[in-house]
Amino acid sequence: MNKNSSNIMALASNTSNKRETVCIFGTGDFGRALGHKIIQAGYPLVFGSRSTQTSNLIPKDAEVLSHAEAAQKAAIIIIAIQRQHYNFLTPLADTLRGKVLVDVSNNLKINQYPESNAEYLAQLVPGAKVVKAFNTVSAWALQSGTLDASRQVFVCGDDMEAKQKVMDIVRALGLTPLDQGSLLAAQEIENYPLQLFPMWKFPILLSLGLTAFFFFYCLTRDVIYPYVYENKDFSFFIAISIPNRICPILALILLALVYLPGVLAAIIQLYRGTKYRRFPDWLDKWMLCRKQLGLVALAFASLHVLYTLVIPIRSFVRWRISSQIISQALNNETEPLNNTNAWLSDSYLALGILGFFLFVLLGITSLPSVSNNVNWREFRFVQSKLGYVTLVLCTAHTLVFGGNRFLSPSSYRWYLPNVYMLSLIVPCIVLVVKFVLIFPCLDKPLTRIRQGWERNPQYSE
Amino acid sequence: MNKNSSNIMALASNTSNKRETVCIFGTGDFGRALGHKIIQAGYPLVFGSRSTQTSNLIPKDAEVLSHAEAAQKAAIIIIAIQRQHYNFLTPLADTLRGKVLVDVSNNLKINQYPESNAEYLAQLVPGAKVVKAFNTVSAWALQSGTLDASRQVFVCGDDMEAKQKVMDIVRALGLTPLDQGSLLAAQEIENYPLQLFPMWKFPILLSLGLTAFFFFYCLTRDVIYPYVYENKDFSFFIAISIPNRICPILALILLALVYLPGVLAAIIQLYRGTKYRRFPDWLDKWMLCRKQLGLVALAFASLHVLYTLVIPIRSFVRWRISSQIISQALNNETEPLNNTNAWLSDSYLALGILGFFLFVLLGITSLPSVSNNVNWREFRFVQSKLGYVTLVLCTAHTLVFGGNRFLSPSSYRWYLPNVYMLSLIVPCIVLVVKFVLIFPCLDKPLTRIRQGWERNPQYSE
Amino acid sequence: MNKNSSNIMALASNTSNKRETVCIFGTGDFGRALGHKIIQAGYPLVFGSRSTQTSNLIPKDAEVLSHAEAAQKAAIIIIAIQRQHYNFLTPLADTLRGKVLVDVSNNLKINQYPESNAEYLAQLVPGAKVVKAFNTVSAWALQSGTLDASRQVFVCGDDMEAKQKVMDIVRALGLTPLDQGSLLAAQEIENYPLQLFPMWKFPILLSLGLTAFFFFYCLTRDVIYPYVYENKDFSFFIAISIPNRICPILALILLALVYLPGVLAAIIQLYRGTKYRRFPDWLDKWMLCRKQLGLVALAFASLHVLYTLVIPIRSFVRWRISSQIISQALNNETEPLNNTNAWLSDSYLALGILGFFLFVLLGITSLPSVSNNVNWREFRFVQSKLGYVTLVLCTAHTLVFGGNRFLSPSSYRWYLPNVYMLSLIVPCIVLVVKFVLIFPCLDKPLTRIRQGWERNPQYSE
Repeated sequence: MNKNSSNIMALASNTSNKRETVCIFGTGDFGRALGHKIIQAGYPLVFGSRSTQTSNLIPKDAEVLSHAEAAQKAAIIIIAIQRQHYNFLTPLADTLRGKVLVDVSNNLKINQYPESNAEYLAQLVPGAKVVKAFNTVSAWALQSGTLDASRQVFVCGDDMEAKQKVMDIVRALGLTPLDQGSLLAAQEIENYPLQLFPMWKFPILLSLGLTAFFFFYCLTRDVIYPYVYENKDFSFFIAISIPNRICPILALILLALVYLPGVLAAIIQLYRGTKYRRFPDWLDKWMLCRKQLGLVALAFASLHVLYTLVIPIRSFVRWRISSQIISQALNNETEPLNNTNAWLSDSYLALGILGFFLFVLLGITSLPSVSNNVNWREFRFVQSKLGYVTLVLCTAHTLVFGGNRFLSPSSYRWYLPNVYMLSLIVPCIVLVVKFVLIFPCLDKPLTRIRQGWERNPQYSE
Repeated sequence: MNKNSSNIMALASNTSNKRETVCIFGTGDFGRALGHKIIQAGYPLVFGSRSTQTSNLIPKDAEVLSHAEAAQKAAIIIIAIQRQHYNFLTPLADTLRGKVLVDVSNNLKINQYPESNAEYLAQLVPGAKVVKAFNTVSAWALQSGTLDASRQVFVCGDDMEAKQKVMDIVRALGLTPLDQGSLLAAQEIENYPLQLFPMWKFPILLSLGLTAFFFFYCLTRDVIYPYVYENKDFSFFIAISIPNRICPILALILLALVYLPGVLAAIIQLYRGTKYRRFPDWLDKWMLCRKQLGLVALAFASLHVLYTLVIPIRSFVRWRISSQIISQALNNETEPLNNTNAWLSDSYLALGILGFFLFVLLGITSLPSVSNNVNWREFRFVQSKLGYVTLVLCTAHTLVFGGNRFLSPSSYRWYLPNVYMLSLIVPCIVLVVKFVLIFPCLDKPLTRIRQGWERNPQYSE
Repeated sequence: MNKNSSNIMALASNTSNKRETVCIFGTGDFGRALGHKIIQAGYPLVFGSRSTQTSNLIPKDAEVLSHAEAAQKAAIIIIAIQRQHYNFLTPLADTLRGKVLVDVSNNLKINQYPESNAEYLAQLVPGAKVVKAFNTVSAWALQSGTLDASRQVFVCGDDMEAKQKVMDIVRALGLTPLDQGSLLAAQEIENYPLQLFPMWKFPILLSLGLTAFFFFYCLTRDVIYPYVYENKDFSFFIAISIPNRICPILALILLALVYLPGVLAAIIQLYRGTKYRRFPDWLDKWMLCRKQLGLVALAFASLHVLYTLVIPIRSFVRWRISSQIISQALNNETEPLNNTNAWLSDSYLALGILGFFLFVLLGITSLPSVSNNVNWREFRFVQSKLGYVTLVLCTAHTLVFGGNRFLSPSSYRWYLPNVYMLSLIVPCIVLVVKFVLIFPCLDKPLTRIRQGWERNPQYSE
């Protein structure tokens, strides 16, 4: 990356002319930026433009010609023009016959048109071989050389040879081509740069919903209830105390939701006696966003850790502790060490620390560069075995934290149980079912089913 | 990754037939999954099978023929069948002459057979060109499109051209081929997916052993001793207090063990006067797992940080502090600030924080995607210079923590010194020897030796 | 990586001789290590050397010949010799005519010679096609197989075909070639391995300067002032209290400096009415090191978090709190909960936690492997939107921390305001200007300018 800034100086003296001429239609921002890069990679370049007047923004080594003249000079023509102006290409149909047309366009909205821009182009110029490429690359990134975001260029097209030529150019530009199949994939490729974390939508909406629910639940129990019955103002609980209840609850529930679909899938497979029938759609989608669910859970767990560690610095906590000590001192009391309390407090802290530690490990192994360096056995070991250990530790942490408060009547204000009791429902279900599934009488048939065995083989025929 | 789910739709209309037909023997899980991907990449495909009855699980665009018929249609035949059934290929030897056979099989155990499956295949069909590939890819990953673990496909074979053809298919499938040399490498490639973190075995076993030792050591000193002599029950120390002694000790010792082999290597090179003789085997292996040792050390250091930060929340600590304050208040004492204690406490905390901070930096730079973006000078600077600064800071942290307790007789219970004294042995040795090696009279010859100079050049001839 | 150690065994039986012979001039460390790898990749190899005496360090399958003989056997000759000995090539000019010479040399200092080694080689042997490559790879890494640092090989040269051949060898060796253009780029490529984090220089120097300034500022206010006026020894503040003031200040200022150049650029573009004139050089450079500035800021923020979390363990803090409690107990005082203080304390902690959390998210998305997996819209969303939210949260954290101390006269010792007031200047400026720029009357023209619109279009012609 350090090298990008001055690459431009290496551009002038490229003496070889082995590479085929490339033509770009359109002298806008993107066309010019791409042109610069292409010249730098050693390709001769012509621009096709309405006005052949050259500008000082156009790369010096490139000619600017009329569309028809430029098209004749090259076998590959990059259409750096917006879709709504494509119809100027119709009169050029003869010149473009047999040429490779590269559609680089993007839309402003997802699925803006019934057919993709590239397919529309292919309809307009039926004699040409249309390839979709470069639409995920930004003009600014090409210019500045800082390709911090993706270097991947998705390529698709019906003509294998045309696609290969475009992929060679992509490689020569220092980018990574990814073949996405036929031109039918263009719609999806055009939608890609418009997406904003599509896989994260469900986990984030779910956690926002749960956060809102638990926030009002805690507000009722911890702020409104004492205000109504004891006339105490604990409104400042909104800043730390309540978030520090919501975060661990969400972390635990979301972590359990990562492992719930796997358990459901196992039950379905056992029931059906085959793995060859598709899961219901919602289960498929759920399984595909498990990684994102887990990372959102990790984010909540991290916040919980930070909120917990600042407890002793909080002004309210300092005041509460010192009032207790002062009242004990004034009453001349000395309390002996309560060994049970010491055990409970230390064990839930230890369980929480170990659970969080494993959770962070899971997070690190889900980094693309780390997961690329492990084999499948290792990946499954970490994400499944370690994952369940994490879930067990975090559930135990919550159970021990609850301690003997579960049965105390003061835990029920307005018939609302303490929130951590609610948070234990999903994880306990997942762990119990998983525990049952481990029994040999269920594990053996499940393993066989997953290796391809079928109870009623007619399903697959 | 977002794009995988619907790629299948792009599969049907692949009009180009430039690509050579591929044949797959076997219609099992893996064969079908690979077949789907291959069709998607634009290759015509035939399956060779015992029963030519087609099933709805087999990709629609693929023909299912008998083995002999299918083999005639393609130059590349992928053998997606288990090793024990390979002998059905012997009668086909004539048809397979000159063809490329791709062995994708895996075993259930490491080194299960004397020769690799691919070499066995080459012996069975001597006229064919056998290439090993695809065995590290999972059928499930191919189907679901979520290639979270490795996209790397290890390829080996004796025929360069055959290997090249297979590598082209690998690339067309969006995977990364890695040429591993001749067919002799197949054994290793077949063992690879069966491995479970082989480089981590030694660091993890070592740290488990040390953990067990220090656990019982601390248990004796901190729980059993007070129970025997003072009849106090400190069994809850097992949850936090004892882990928080073991973790920093292991972090420090393992970090020192990362730098010890480098120091030993320097001494050996100085003694021998050449760098061209191989190190003893144990030293070579030790040097190769330094990164893993360092990361395990970092894990223990992180746990130590978490265990330390929860100290003020522990019920026992709160009880101890408030009893101290109450007893002071009842005795009407006011203690002045002890400046030495303030200095000691603040400095060991500050040293620990800085040491941990640098340690985390070292960990981040060892992430594959980060270390890929630095040059060698930068990598060595971080891993060696910053590494030693980290070791110095962490050792100083432990020394200052010990403070004036080193000589106090109460530190020796049952003649067992405090554990942190034991933990200082290895780091201090490493630092002293390294300090000696920095002196010009040793550093200069060492640098010359590492640049290729030899004291007695006959060694290298 | 696990596979590297024993690849050597696969080396011997490479039966294909499709690959072209490669010649290496020089049997030094680097030549031999490269030779080993090249043989392993299946290329026949000859060494050219002054003495044709073979040594047991030279790969067994390679011949050692005189320079002239070796050169005749191969079309590609790798010059693994230091620049000062290049003149021995002059008499070989006839033999080398038309051959590809690969310059792998490095210098000891940046810009050591007026022209790059590769250009010097091209002048010495005008008939040959010189390609620069392999200089960023270390001999040690080639030997040990642990390519932890970069696998990237920068390649440049004037002859496209020669470059292609060299890039094929690079790929066969399992490395990634990066075409850097013509031989003019060689100077830069030769400087690359000598660089030590060039993009980090400015952020690190800046933060060192600011650290020194704020250290002496705090020392004066917090240690020297109480010593002079109150004769109190707070020298131990140097260990934690003062660093914990400097770190948040630097984190905040540096984070603001990440967003300041973007704001300045917007003002300049609005003023000029075009985006097509280059920014002043300092602004360009500043914009290119924003990522590094942000990461240094994150480092300071992390240190601040650690320093803050250890506060309750500090001996000084424990002493101060217990003296307060004891004096209250002795005076028989019981203080009621101060609700305003509880609110202030909890909110600045909560703001700090959320700000730090988002800051860490920004840091994670700047990891190369993560940013490679997002599209441009997502990258901008995280780095710009989330970045500003982080800045707002961190500024608010500091403002609330200041609370009502801003106007208290005790905040001004020796007319020096409290440091956090100084730290707020830059972030507040950035936020105010950004807030103004969001107004539609400024935002609309700015958007149009960034889409290519110009107020006075003559600029671009």
